[in-house]
Amino acid sequence: MSDRVKYILDENKIPTHWYNIEADLKIKTPAPIDPATGAPMEIAKLESIFSKGAMEQETSHERYIEIPKPVREIMRQWRPSPLYRARRLEKVLDTPARIYYKYEGVSPSGSHKTNSAIAQAFECKREGVKKVTTETGAGQWGSALSQASSIFGLECRVYMVRCSFDQKPYRKAMMELFGATTIASPSMETEVGREVLAKDPDCRGSLGIAISEAVEDALKHGAKYCLGSVLNHVLLHQTVIGQEAIAQMEMAEDYPDIVIGACGGGSNFAGIAFPFIGEMLRGGRKVDILGVEPAACPTLTKGKYAYDFGDVAKTTPLMKMYTLGSSFIPPAVHAGGLRYHGMAPQISNIAKQGIMRARTVQQLDVFRDAVVFARAEGITPAPESSHAISAAMDEARECKKTGKSKSILFNLSGHGHLDMTAYLEYFAGKLKNYEYPEPEIAMALSGLPVL
Amino acid sequence: MSDRVKYILDENKIPTHWYNIEADLKIKTPAPIDPATGAPMEIAKLESIFSKGAMEQETSHERYIEIPKPVREIMRQWRPSPLYRARRLEKVLDTPARIYYKYEGVSPSGSHKTNSAIAQAFECKREGVKKVTTETGAGQWGSALSQASSIFGLECRVYMVRCSFDQKPYRKAMMELFGATTIASPSMETEVGREVLAKDPDCRGSLGIAISEAVEDALKHGAKYCLGSVLNHVLLHQTVIGQEAIAQMEMAEDYPDIVIGACGGGSNFAGIAFPFIGEMLRGGRKVDILGVEPAACPTLTKGKYAYDFGDVAKTTPLMKMYTLGSSFIPPAVHAGGLRYHGMAPQISNIAKQGIMRARTVQQLDVFRDAVVFARAEGITPAPESSHAISAAMDEARECKKTGKSKSILFNLSGHGHLDMTAYLEYFAGKLKNYEYPEPEIAMALSGLPVL
Repeated sequence: MSDRVKYILDENKIPTHWYNIEADLKIKTPAPIDPATGAPMEIAKLESIFSKGAMEQETSHERYIEIPKPVREIMRQWRPSPLYRARRLEKVLDTPARIYYKYEGVSPSGSHKTNSAIAQAFECKREGVKKVTTETGAGQWGSALSQASSIFGLECRVYMVRCSFDQKPYRKAMMELFGATTIASPSMETEVGREVLAKDPDCRGSLGIAISEAVEDALKHGAKYCLGSVLNHVLLHQTVIGQEAIAQMEMAEDYPDIVIGACGGGSNFAGIAFPFIGEMLRGGRKVDILGVEPAACPTLTKGKYAYDFGDVAKTTPLMKMYTLGSSFIPPAVHAGGLRYHGMAPQISNIAKQGIMRARTVQQLDVFRDAVVFARAEGITPAPESSHAISAAMDEARECKKTGKSKSILFNLSGHGHLDMTAYLEYFAGKLKNYEYPEPEIAMALSGLPVL
Repeated sequence: MSDRVKYILDENKIPTHWYNIEADLKIKTPAPIDPATGAPMEIAKLESIFSKGAMEQETSHERYIEIPKPVREIMRQWRPSPLYRARRLEKVLDTPARIYYKYEGVSPSGSHKTNSAIAQAFECKREGVKKVTTETGAGQWGSALSQASSIFGLECRVYMVRCSFDQKPYRKAMMELFGATTIASPSMETEVGREVLAKDPDCRGSLGIAISEAVEDALKHGAKYCLGSVLNHVLLHQTVIGQEAIAQMEMAEDYPDIVIGACGGGSNFAGIAFPFIGEMLRGGRKVDILGVEPAACPTLTKGKYAYDFGDVAKTTPLMKMYTLGSSFIPPAVHAGGLRYHGMAPQISNIAKQGIMRARTVQQLDVFRDAVVFARAEGITPAPESSHAISAAMDEARECKKTGKSKSILFNLSGHGHLDMTAYLEYFAGKLKNYEYPEPEIAMALSGLPVL
């Protein structure tokens, strides 16, 4: 076993293809449904909003989809991302476990989101699109698309949920640094926004409203809309993470017994997990695949597998997924990126089939473990990524109890440099745990569309 | 010529020794003087404040000083740091120049400061010290020493200048995340602090006061004091940067015609420049060495080469250096790390001998160029590091005019994720240039001690 701390792949080892898990799934992921007709969604309709290239990827069943050369060229800036062996953390935990983490915080936006942002912006550029729109909550996806747009010379307009817009001025600064326009949502720029503000001038906004504004803006101004998670093509773009990790674990002369990722919409989890699942589905070594979600938003663990809308405003197609009900507004945990009522249809399908398992973690445990991790490893983790850290540390603590030396791999999806307010509140004793919001979820689930 | 974007050295290429420029200087750097006696400072006096190990390095004339193995082990986490070819920036500037930058923002604290923090904390640990103190302005050095202390299990107390403490809560959060205690200075914890506050309860603090508080705290509580720049041993620790850069330029099959670093106290500049200067002094290829400082604090360009105190409160030994006068308080430019009245004695000596040159840049030009750089290269630079960016871009623009294809290398000493307020103010049109503060500097210089 090597005694290295980090495993760096050569630039020429950046994956040449994205891995499409659909090819290896015996039970295919159910297609989205048009709420207007009750029939499978027509691609032509989606192409009025998304780029054609993204929609081709969305519906493909090919196992490997070639990454366009310009996208690979740009990824050379920060890819392959490092894989670390957490030797100091292992010592602190006094565990026989071997802990590895793949670190996506080295990207321009500071998270894995850039992997998909570059790919989506490229497809838009290739199709002659001049402008893209999107929504952002915590700001990681907005930052990523801003930077990708600046690379391809696209105009980029980001509708940022008003409460985050006010709380996180540093994220706004980063988006503007990369040349994007950031608009607090609800805004006066769209019909939807004006309608909401007419009713409630002090509205703090929601992702649902921001999505609606971004889509309206795109449709009205000949732009394309880009989404940062949930959809098949976004998950596909993230599979560079797991493919690199497989090669890096080989450098480490090891293979994970367990692979862990935090689950919000599902893109960072899919990024690390799908390539390992693919190996399994094709007869490779069995790996324990674990998705981690906040107790405040337990989609995979407490949700229902059903057709539901992707947004609060019910403007998207219906997707078959684990859901807490599209009207459910999760409590205000600091991991803004994990506050989503649904789960990517592909991940939901895999979870339904028992190919992966899921668990929840509580906010205070997440921050307690993030602090231990930061002090040991010298990396300031994002609150979202810290859900994976906490679950990995639990597995390592379990190994200490049992004496078993498991190999644990998790995805450290981003740094927390722009989320330091969360740590300040944690140190000030202002954060709390959230009980399972059962009545709210029951209520939201009771409103699921009947199909 | 290779067409790579980044040059990554293998972990086993981390330098084994620090490079001590003193060995190659014909005219040695004048020793510090004890203001009480007018004679060279006794080492024993300094060792009551600093670790013995640091003072041995401070006074050594050996060319290579071995890096202790535990320090190298820890550096494996983020070293060797990447060297980038700025291909997209070159395209934006339409320049025949080849632009390279060494990126130190990958360290745990986000800047080069960690290189010295680990080395200093290690010496303290080795000597049985339990606690270290320091001061910090913008917070980069404080973050670095906090993280290094957490690695070695040292208690760390950081006196942070009150105005920065209030302006930069994210830096405080990072220091606390790494386990340090951050105290707004002036504080009620020290005699000095209480005295200042008795006179002015609303005092916003200064580095001079914070240094005095940190030193008093160290002396009273059996701790050691650590400094983040200026002194020989701190510059020494940074020479890993330039040594790696030499190896990486070789990978790029190129050699710089010009090497550029921003100059505050001098540590990041020395880090990139000293190893190249050493090559020159030992008969190697001639390189144009350029130090860049803010027009608001033009130490090398407008200062006087004389013995002066290192702090406003006149508590340090006298050092022979370029100085604007220790009572000079530079205007509030956003590059807090460059707001220092003096310059490292070794750099001052080299500048005096004409081995390097220096220039100033204006704040608005710095931010204009930082924005161009960020959009092209996808990295959010610190305001300090952006001084080097701006000067490098000027050199590249000059190449466009002359048609000459120079090879330009600069040190990108840190990221700006915790300095986004500066960008917000720049975008809001709130930043301004500063004229050369001639009367204030003349006044401060008139108070130089007579030796």
